[in-house]
Amino acid sequence: MQKIEHIGIAVKNLEVSNILFEKLLGTPHYKIEEVLSEGVKTSFFKTGVNKIELLEANSEDSAIAKFIEKKGEGVHHIAFLVVDIYAEIARLKKEGFVVLNEKPKKGADNKLVAFVHPKTANGVLIELCQELPESQINDDVLEKE
Amino acid sequence: MQKIEHIGIAVKNLEVSNILFEKLLGTPHYKIEEVLSEGVKTSFFKTGVNKIELLEANSEDSAIAKFIEKKGEGVHHIAFLVVDIYAEIARLKKEGFVVLNEKPKKGADNKLVAFVHPKTANGVLIELCQELPESQINDDVLEKE
Repeated sequence: MQKIEHIGIAVKNLEVSNILFEKLLGTPHYKIEEVLSEGVKTSFFKTGVNKIELLEANSEDSAIAKFIEKKGEGVHHIAFLVVDIYAEIARLKKEGFVVLNEKPKKGADNKLVAFVHPKTANGVLIELCQELPESQINDDVLEKE
Repeated sequence: MQKIEHIGIAVKNLEVSNILFEKLLGTPHYKIEEVLSEGVKTSFFKTGVNKIELLEANSEDSAIAKFIEKKGEGVHHIAFLVVDIYAEIARLKKEGFVVLNEKPKKGADNKLVAFVHPKTANGVLIELCQELPESQINDDVLEKE
C-alpha cells in the first residue's frame, strides 16, 4: 500500500455536503463524477497528497443508499493506492481476506478498483486502487493477460 | 489541512488486530502507545506518508468502548495534519463547526489534537493534529500566549 489514496464518505445530499466540506477542508471540490455502474454521484477534494470522496446515492438500490439507511452518513470506505492491483488482490486472498472482486473494475477518478469485505478487515470496507493507464481509460475490457 | 495524518480505527483486541493489519497493509506496526487520559491503547502503521492508528479501549468508560458497543469495530475518526491548530480551531468555529476542545490537548504520537463533533461534519469525527514541538513533548501546560 503506497498511501491512503482517499477516504470515501457517504452523504445524503452532495450539494449540501460539498459546501460543508469546502468549509471544513478550506478548499473547494475539484471534480464531480457520476459512476452509473455503482449508482453514485461523487465529488473529490484534495488534502495534500490525499483525497476525500463524497458519495451520494443515485438510486434507492445503491450501496450508498443502503449504507446510509443502516448506519447514517459517515465514512464508507478507505482506499489505498497500490502499484499492482492484480498482485495485491492475490496477496490479500492468500492472507485470508475476502476480496469482493475477482478482477478489478473501473471506479471513479480513472482508477482500477477492488474491495475487501469489511467483515474480514475489522469492520472497515477497504478499497484497493491503481491509477488506470491513460491508454485504458476508455477501454471497456480490463482483462490482464 | 495538509494531508490525512492518520485514520483511527476502533478495535476490540489490539493484539489480534495488529496481526490482521500487518497482513492487510503488508507492514508491521511501528509503535504501541497508551494514552491514559483517553482510556486507549493504540498502535500505529505507516502507509507512505499516512498512518493507520488502531485503538483499543483500556476501560469500559473509554470512548472507544462506547463506540464499539454502539457501532461495532470500524473507522472511528479521520485526523488531518494542520500547521497551526489554534488558528484552525478558530477558523472552524467561525465556520459553524462544533469543536470539542477549546484548547488543543496532547494526543498520541507527540501531537497536539482537537476534535470536531461528527454531528457538524456529516457523521465523521474529525481530528485536527499538529506536530508537538520537541521542547513541549514533556510539558504539562500547553497554553499558547
